[in-house]
Formats: sequence, structure tokens, C-alpha cells
Amino acid sequence: MNRQPHVAVVGATGAVGIEMIRTLERRQFPLSRLTLLASARSAGKTIRFRNEEIPVQELKADSFRGVDLALFSAGSSVSKQFAPEAVKAGCVVVDNSSAFRMDDTVPLVVPEINGDDVRWHRGIIANPNCTTAITLMALYPLHRAFGCRRIFASSYQAVSGTGARAIAELERQVRQIVHGEPVTREVYPHQIAFNVLPHVDSFLPNGYTREEMKLENEGRKIMHHPGFRASVTCVRVPVYRAHSVAVSAEFEKPVSVEAALDVLRQAPGLDVIDDPARCEYPMPLYQAGKDNCAVGRIRKDCALDNGLCFWVCGDQLLKGAALNAVQIAELLLAT
Amino acid sequence: MNRQPHVAVVGATGAVGIEMIRTLERRQFPLSRLTLLASARSAGKTIRFRNEEIPVQELKADSFRGVDLALFSAGSSVSKQFAPEAVKAGCVVVDNSSAFRMDDTVPLVVPEINGDDVRWHRGIIANPNCTTAITLMALYPLHRAFGCRRIFASSYQAVSGTGARAIAELERQVRQIVHGEPVTREVYPHQIAFNVLPHVDSFLPNGYTREEMKLENEGRKIMHHPGFRASVTCVRVPVYRAHSVAVSAEFEKPVSVEAALDVLRQAPGLDVIDDPARCEYPMPLYQAGKDNCAVGRIRKDCALDNGLCFWVCGDQLLKGAALNAVQIAELLLAT
Repeated sequence: MNRQPHVAVVGATGAVGIEMIRTLERRQFPLSRLTLLASARSAGKTIRFRNEEIPVQELKADSFRGVDLALFSAGSSVSKQFAPEAVKAGCVVVDNSSAFRMDDTVPLVVPEINGDDVRWHRGIIANPNCTTAITLMALYPLHRAFGCRRIFASSYQAVSGTGARAIAELERQVRQIVHGEPVTREVYPHQIAFNVLPHVDSFLPNGYTREEMKLENEGRKIMHHPGFRASVTCVRVPVYRAHSVAVSAEFEKPVSVEAALDVLRQAPGLDVIDDPARCEYPMPLYQAGKDNCAVGRIRKDCALDNGLCFWVCGDQLLKGAALNAVQIAELLLAT
Repeated sequence: MNRQPHVAVVGATGAVGIEMIRTLERRQFPLSRLTLLASARSAGKTIRFRNEEIPVQELKADSFRGVDLALFSAGSSVSKQFAPEAVKAGCVVVDNSSAFRMDDTVPLVVPEINGDDVRWHRGIIANPNCTTAITLMALYPLHRAFGCRRIFASSYQAVSGTGARAIAELERQVRQIVHGEPVTREVYPHQIAFNVLPHVDSFLPNGYTREEMKLENEGRKIMHHPGFRASVTCVRVPVYRAHSVAVSAEFEKPVSVEAALDVLRQAPGLDVIDDPARCEYPMPLYQAGKDNCAVGRIRKDCALDNGLCFWVCGDQLLKGAALNAVQIAELLLAT
């Protein structure tokens, strides 16, 4: 790939798109030109990038002429329609939607885990589900050291995962409650303020949500671990932008808290925050805006023989989406 | 016991104490007289009960003269000091604190599960931890039918569990944020508004909190199941008064979703709310104020062979505290 590529961001005005643009700027991504694409509704807006106001253009089939690299975050149906057009135009696509993640011909990549998989792409590289990426940032180093058989996980997911309208919905509902006004709903099927919803993404016939199955399915592919099992409950909580996950993990080999801490302290992209006596543990409020994920509450599992419990938090818009996509783009430039 | 007992509520001005008084009134508990006790700070306030303003008196060693039944909810140290005084005065104590729960000479009772245990009391009966009671309301019927080996559970606990000051803290922090003012903290070690804290009760040397170990320890005693294992993460969430728990449970016998639903639909004190296609599942906002707990999201566990996942919610101040205590008192009257 061109070492100073022409980059496009598709879904530029969404919560993830805006974070992609900020991440490209912050990490001084060596792009020669930035094209911002979105639906007709957003066309004409401008977004600041490196002291320049860049106009948002309407996404069309011919939008990718001359573009080297496109970061997509505009939902599965947009990716399914336009990513093949971009590839036809000679562009490499990093896609944040679920459209291609389980496609055998598409690598699904967390750079700290399976960065080498970018080498075999055929035009599209998939960015994983946010909860999956954040959980694996702590789980994979432990899997490498001790061999993970299965996990039991419950998530505490921020509204940012649903997008900018959901962030606005939580803000609005809280204001309505403080001012004694009726609470209105537009995005979620139930009030999210002062509530939790055991419902993220849509339901499957087996009673799980799609989101809950992603951790097992995407986890197997990213970790190259087809026997990995995951029992997951995904829950939306009234938090703005970082996800948390409580994990019980069973390993092949015996594991101690000390050995796990040694492994986790050396893991890339991960901070260990684990001093309960001082009330130090990861929390979503303080993990928001941080590139690294954080792990803590590491302890022997009470109900498993070779088991560990831990608690991992990560910014949903960064490692859960935009940062991971830009890291994939950086790998593409380096290979 | 006197069929129209003189009842005292200890900790009458706390979040649980007020709910105990309301529950006695609502369930038309046949008491002849109600004495309200609290710390010196609250003495002199009055609380309405059956169209009467009852003054709150300062709790003293001689407060229990002539009292038949005392419901305690004023913390462990108050229970340790004053429950024995009450017993000496001939009073039966139902204690909501953790002071006596694991004492072999004290029954620990959820009436729907082990109501018969009230028969062997020696003056004190313990009311279980809120998260434990709510989880067992769904787990115990399944255990009876299929034999539960172990569970993996994560909680989503309301601030009411910490008491009235914590409810005020969440309200205040949200108001401060809406008005753009600095956020102040008095109760929790970190901001609770728009955050989650993987920290409920104090930490033990094994890295678990006391709260997390209660589900295994109290669960064994209540279910008469010494081999029960529980791996638990307890998390405080910005919700006002109902707790939620995500559970993966492993059973001795094969179990199907249909068989589990049959069992749960017949369980006392429990509603089944489980129609994901219509976005119907238990949620803490709508479980607040309800006597019954609710279970939903029932599905086969992906990582266990004889396993089920479910999601249970219950009002922390009712089944998690005041209601269960009043139900124990009702059993005492009937035996």
C-alpha cells in the first residue's frame, strides 16, 4: 500500500466515525488526504482534521475512486453494499460492522493478538465486536500462558455502543427525570436511565442475543482457538462510553493469581489496576478516553479448579472500535 | 408467640426500616403495638403507621421490655450489641444484618425455601443478604428439580443496598452533572453516576468481597447444600432500588429450557418474564416496588453440558430485605 495513503472514513459523522478521525489525527497517521463519507442527511457538514475543515460527502458507489484505504463504520447493510465497491476500486477496507467478521475469506483482527492475519486479506479486514475485543485484550495473554477452555462472562455495556443517538437518549432521559418531566424513548425499547437492559443487539432462536454469541464466535477466530466456549450475558447499563466485563475463565494448566499478574503486566495495550485495599480497580468512567484497556479484581475462581476471575474495562469507541481499526490500518502500512 | 405481638423496628428511619414499616402495614400484620427505634440522631422524628404518627425512640438496652418481636436493620454492630439484649428480654429477633447469618445456632431463612428452619431458632433468626435471597428465589426451584452443582454469577446492584445516603448520593451526583456543577462524593469511594463499581462491601484476603462470598456461604446454609459452589462478581450500578443477577448454573441432571420454565412458573414468589421477541425480560426499574422477584432470559448454557443461563431481578428493599423479614415474622406467628 501507498505509504501516504488517501484515506476515507465511511460513517464519518457517527460516534465511531468521529473517533476514527480523532484517532487518525492523534496518532499522526501518515495519510496524504482524508475523504469523509456519510449518508445524504449528513452531507455538507464539515469536520475539523489537522486544522482544516473537511466537508462530509454523500457516500456513493463511485466514492472510492483514488482512495487507498477506507475505514467503515456505518452499519452492516452499508458495509455489505459499499465495501465490495471500494475493493473493486482498489481500496483496502477496514470494516467495523459485523458484516464480514465470520467470513472465512476475511481476517478478523486485534493487532495485539493476531496482527499477522492482516497479511492474507483480499481487500477487506474486519474489526471485531467491541465487547469481544476488550475481553480478549485480557483473556488472550492468559490463554497463551495457561490454555483457556471456556469462560463465563457478563457485560456492563455503555450506550456509546448503540451510537450517538443513544448517548443523546441517556442524556435526555436523565435531564427529564431531574426536571420532573415525562421520560421519552426513541432508541432503546425501555428507559435506560437508572435501569439496566439484558438486551444488546437482536435475539436468536437459541435465546441468546447476537452480541452474546460474538464473544465465542469471534473469540475462536481471533485466538485461532476453535474449541473455545463462552457463556455470555450482555447487558446495557447507563454509562456513556466504556464497557466492562466480569469474566470467570477455566484453563488447561494450573494458574495462580501471581502467575496471571506476571502475564497481564507484560501484555501489550493493557494496564493492570488491581489494588482493592486502596479501592483501585478498573471502572468505565475512568477508562473512557484511554487507548489501553484495564484489568483488575484478579482472583482464583471459587467454582473452577484451574480458574481465574477478572474484571476488564475498555473504551468502547477506542479499543472497542476506532482505535483497533486505525491500528489495523497502521499494520497494513507496515506490511 | 403472642398472636397479636408488640413489634419493634430497629433502624426505623433507614431505607430498609421504612420499608419494613410499610410492609407491616401493607400486609396487615396483626400487631398490637409498634415501637420504632433508631439512633439518638433520629429520635423525636415521627413515622406514619395505620393513620397514626409514631415517634421514633432512641435505641437502648432496655428498649425491648414488653416487645415480642423485633425486626433489626441497623447494621451488624448494632445487631451484635442489641439483639442479645432483646432476646434476654424475651423478644424474638429477625435480623437483617450479616451479624448472625453464618452462626450455626441461628437459622438463616428465605420462607419460600427453608421456612421450616424458623422452628429451631433460639431467639434470633437471620435474614439473608439481598443478592443471595433474590438469586436463590430462581435458583432453588431449579436446584430441587435438577440438582445444582455450581453457579457463575455477576450482579448489577442498586444503590439502595447501601442505604438512604447512597440513594441521595446518586440523586445528587446526577443533578450536579445535569447542572454542570462539580460532582461530590460522601458514600462511595468513586462517582456512581454514569459509572459502575466492581466493589460491594469490603475486600477479603482472597480477593473477593464479603458480598461475593455470601452467595456461596449463605446459599449453602439456606438450600441445605454444603457442596454448592459459587463464583461471583458483585457490581454496584447507578440504579435506585432493584438488584439484577446474571447466572450460569450447572446441574447434576440434564435440563431443558422447557423443563426449567415448567419449574419456574410454579415457584412461589417468582414471576417468569421471558418473551425476548417482544422485548420482555426482567428489569430493575420495573421490578422496584414489587414483592415477587422475576426471572427471564432462560436459555441453555453455551459452556456447560447440563447448564442454564438466566437473569433474575428483585426489589432489594423488599425481597432483598424488608419483605423477607416480615415473611419470617409471619411464619413465626403461624408456628
